[in-house]
Order: sequence, then C-alpha cells, then structure tokens
Amino acid sequence: MSVAANVVKKFINDPENVVPEALEGVAAAHPDLVRVDLANQLVIRRDAPVAGKVGLVSGGGSGHEPLHGGFVGVGMLDAACAGAVFTSPVPDQMAAASKAVDGGAGVLHIVKNYTGDVLNFRMAAELVEDEGVEVASVVVDDDCAVEDSLYTAGRRGVGATVLLEKAAGARAEAGGSLSEVAGIARKVNERSRSFGVALTSCATPSSGTPIFDLGPDEIEVGVGIHGEPGRRREKMAPAAEIVEMMLTPILEDLDPAPGSPLLAFVNGLGGTPLLELYLLFNELKKQLEARSLTIERSLVGNYITSLEMAGASITLLHLDEQLVQLWDAPVKTAALRWGA
Amino acid sequence: MSVAANVVKKFINDPENVVPEALEGVAAAHPDLVRVDLANQLVIRRDAPVAGKVGLVSGGGSGHEPLHGGFVGVGMLDAACAGAVFTSPVPDQMAAASKAVDGGAGVLHIVKNYTGDVLNFRMAAELVEDEGVEVASVVVDDDCAVEDSLYTAGRRGVGATVLLEKAAGARAEAGGSLSEVAGIARKVNERSRSFGVALTSCATPSSGTPIFDLGPDEIEVGVGIHGEPGRRREKMAPAAEIVEMMLTPILEDLDPAPGSPLLAFVNGLGGTPLLELYLLFNELKKQLEARSLTIERSLVGNYITSLEMAGASITLLHLDEQLVQLWDAPVKTAALRWGA
Repeated sequence: MSVAANVVKKFINDPENVVPEALEGVAAAHPDLVRVDLANQLVIRRDAPVAGKVGLVSGGGSGHEPLHGGFVGVGMLDAACAGAVFTSPVPDQMAAASKAVDGGAGVLHIVKNYTGDVLNFRMAAELVEDEGVEVASVVVDDDCAVEDSLYTAGRRGVGATVLLEKAAGARAEAGGSLSEVAGIARKVNERSRSFGVALTSCATPSSGTPIFDLGPDEIEVGVGIHGEPGRRREKMAPAAEIVEMMLTPILEDLDPAPGSPLLAFVNGLGGTPLLELYLLFNELKKQLEARSLTIERSLVGNYITSLEMAGASITLLHLDEQLVQLWDAPVKTAALRWGA
Repeated sequence: MSVAANVVKKFINDPENVVPEALEGVAAAHPDLVRVDLANQLVIRRDAPVAGKVGLVSGGGSGHEPLHGGFVGVGMLDAACAGAVFTSPVPDQMAAASKAVDGGAGVLHIVKNYTGDVLNFRMAAELVEDEGVEVASVVVDDDCAVEDSLYTAGRRGVGATVLLEKAAGARAEAGGSLSEVAGIARKVNERSRSFGVALTSCATPSSGTPIFDLGPDEIEVGVGIHGEPGRRREKMAPAAEIVEMMLTPILEDLDPAPGSPLLAFVNGLGGTPLLELYLLFNELKKQLEARSLTIERSLVGNYITSLEMAGASITLLHLDEQLVQLWDAPVKTAALRWGA
C-alpha cells in the first residue's frame, strides 16, 4: 500500500483519542502539580479550589502545548480546558473548570480571540453565574499581523496569552480581587503585541497531512497559530531580515518610547530547534538596542505552539514596575517554574 | 532560481555563525544564570569558579539543545563547551572550560561516548592536569540500541547524560568530593538505558538538506542523536507498538526487579509536539505497570535533541534512595529548574 509523500508521521494510537491519552500522560507526569478530570478534559491545579483566591481558567483547542495545561499550578492558572486539536472546548467543559476552581473569590476566564472560544466561554460564564459563581472575562488579541482572520473577528490571541496568564496568576496568588486580577490581564494584553512567521505547515492527527502548502523557498509572514494566512508570502530570507519583518509591525503598533523596558518573548511554533530560537533572540536584542529599547525580562522557548510547525513568533510586552514584579513572582507549573 | 524540494528552512544568517550567534542569544537571555565566553564557545555558570566545589564540565557538538548549555547553573553543570553542529568541541575549549570552573576541588568531565568527544576530552584533561587541575572523567554510554555505531566504539551516550548531569551536579553542590561526584555520575550511567526512534531526519545548517532518507511510512528504530542508523527500519506503527519497540530492549538490558523504582524520561528529538510526548509517556507508564514496575520520578520534554528531527527516546534510570534525593535537590538552569 502506498503512503502519500506528504504524510506527517505522529506518535499516536487512534487519532480520536490523542487528547485524552495525552492528558492521562500529563496526570501521570505531574501529580505534584495537577490533577486531570478526564471526563471533562481539564487540567486542574492539584489543590484547587484555593479558598479566597480568584480562580484562573483558560483553554482552547489542543495542539498548542504547553499552552494551556502546562501553565496550571501555583502562581499561574487554576484550570485549563482542552478541546480537540485546533477546536474550541465546549461550554460544559469551561463551566466544570470554573466550578472546580471557584474558591469563593470569583473566576477569571482568559479567552484567546477565536470566535468559537469567545462564544463558548461566554455561554459557560452564563451557566456558572446562574449557579452563583462570579465570572470576569478577558479576551486576548495581541497578534498585530492581521485585522480579522480565519476563525477570528478582530485580532488573534497568541503569545501574550502566556505573559498574561503569568502576571494575572501572580496577582491572584497574592490575594488580588477579581477586578484587580482581570485588570492585570487586560493591562498585559493592551501593552503586548505579537507577530509570527511560519517556515512550514503542520498536520492535525485526524488529517495527517499539512493544513496548507508552503514552497521550499517560501515563508508565511504573519501566520496564525492554526496556520491561518498572514499578511503575505515572502521568499526565505536571513534571520536578521525575518526578525525585522516581525519587529517592524510590532513596534509600529505598540509604539514604546525610547528607553521603555520590554519583556521580549521569542516563541517556537513547535518544530524549530532551540538553537535557532536563541539566534533569533540575539537578532531581536540587537535590533531593539539599535532603536534604544531595552530588554528587561525575556522568555525563549516553545510555549505556544502549532503542533510540529517550524516557525517562531515574537511578543513584546511594554513593562512597568508592577508587571516586572508580577513576572518575577514565584511560579510552579510544568512549563514555567521559578522561585518556588 | 529553483530550490530543492527537500531543503530544510532555518532561522539563520551565515551557516558558519549559527553557534556563536545562538550563544550570544543565550548570554542575553540568561544573564542571571550564566556568562558566555564567545572566543571559546563556552557557557559558564555565572558565579564560577565556586570555591571548594567540584566543577562539572560537559560539552559536545551543537544541535542537541538544551543539552548542554541549558543545564549550566546552580545544582547542575558549571560549564558547557559548544562545538559546531554535530561536531566535537576541540581540546582547547574543554581546557578553558575546566580552568574557568576549577574552584580547587577538581573538575569532572562528562563525556558522551563519541570518538571525537572522548579523544578531545582526554587531551584536554592532560592539558589542564599539567597546570595542576585535578580531573576525573566519566563516559556516558546508555544507548542500548546498537553496539558500536557511526562515530562511536561501544554504545552511544544519549538521554542518561541529562539525568547524570543533574544527579552529579546535586552531589557537587552539596559538597561532594571529586571521587564522590564522579561515582554518582558512573552510577547513573550504569543504572540507565535509552532507546530512540526517528520519524524524520534532520538537516545541519551547513548542508540544509536531510542527513538521511526515511520514507513516508518508515521509522528508524534505534536511531542515534546525529541520525546514526539504528537496529532496523520498520513500517510506521501505533504509539503503543513503538513504545514496546523501545521498552523491550531497555528492559532486557537493564533488567530491573519487579517493584524497582524508576525514573522514566520521555525525550523529544526536537520536532515532535509535546502532545505526542505526553501520549508516549502515558503508554510507557501503562506498559511499565503491566510489568510491575513503578515510575517514581519522571521527565517529559525536549532535553537532548537532534535539531528538528521528529522522534523520541525513552530513558529509564533504576533509582535508589540516594538518586531520588539527588534528583529532587534544587536546580536552577535555563532548561531544568525547581526548588531554587
């Protein structure tokens, strides 16, 4: 039997069971941090609900790991809802997560701006509010590559989600009220911009073949995390030029004053070696310094991915003193961990 | 101009400068943990040499990141020497690293069993011993896929390197002597076995095309971390069968008694999504439990990679009480961090 030359081989059993089987693996690997509700496909902070603490719930389609399940733990998320690959979870999952982490101080929904996620989180909020759980929501829309996109009205939510979950999680851990925690989340979103570039496509487990075609000398400039088209196709270029393609629209939109302290986040989309991500970070630092901008904090690695896509995104967050403190606060999750 | 269909696009500028540019990125991203000696291509613990502490030096070809530079810091390595991609560093680099981290208690060289690395570390040891630095060496050879290989006489050193650097680093941090620290390293190596499977090849920056060919329905069973051939080619199979292909030779060789406590390490080779690594971990856990073996500690992620290769390896370490304590001890590096 012949196999299509463009098939993407994957370590899976039944394509239908990829997400639950991976969640069982998460439960087995991190019993010190989380428990897993397999029926609802939730990763839940082990000691949730934490009495008196605002609960943070996020979620979305799977395939972006470690986002969101890898960020559940002390100082970040209380629960993550996993949908099928690149598919929103349903309202019942989000409602179950909200109830599981409500410690009496209310629950914040952190929603990446994709139409399915936005609608389903809204329905979930109505469901649990009827049961007496106070809910606030923040929609993340930091991707300045395109205005509107496949699956999205308005800008897409991408890398800032990681930074926002960290900062809002720290505020909640320190006893912040629901409106304070939601305020931090909105502040991070407003002060962040992201831009991604794909060198290759990726394949969902159920299809097994690339979700778009990209020539051997082409890159997708402004790609979304589900392979959504960006601004344009370009010819492959040196790293310095690609960083400039990403940085220019970010700075045009964010417009930080010279001397502004930044958090610079170079994120791999899944299939790009760490060696290249550090090289990109070096380029980014040089180009920021040339514009009198300062990297005050940084993050380099695969944190919000698109399965095995080769590619990277840059997120810049315009810091202030409060955000630096929240970033530096202890965090103890599978994918981000320091000071705890 | 036409571009070969099998070209692997990479975020690089000049292929000759990939490693130094990435090292500059490491220096910029982690000033709290390390400093970088660019002339010698070394990542060095920020506060090295630590007076009275055994210094741990490892290194090897680049392209396996985060190994080794990502493991430099408190509780693990004192220095890592970076060679060109898939090429051993030279003795002068290793000697410079040894001198930079010698705090008066001697230096341990941690050497993966590849002919170039072994010869060059041996020459480096002679160089620095002439200058009065005491050196012990441990050669890691945990890969039970093949006896002898490309670049290797005897077994290859792979996943156990990560576990060994962690355990020996903890012993050094706690004040162990050179012979005690070397003893821990040897103990971890003796009690560890690894086996890898590739779903795809990978490309070095200088060539830009895959270093071997693998059909769309083929996997390389027992692959090395430079794409060295394994035991055989097989047809692509479900994850459960692939885990069995890896686990059977590991257990035949390691032969732990029922009830033995194990550290189970599922490692991605660079291009495999975390979703699949957790699914593999779940399979591994089930198959170990069916054999009355217990996962006492675990590690899941991309820690010793082969550029963008899709694939994974399993390493099992037969723990004892001492090794559990050393594993749990605080560590503060770019790639492994807890308790500190």
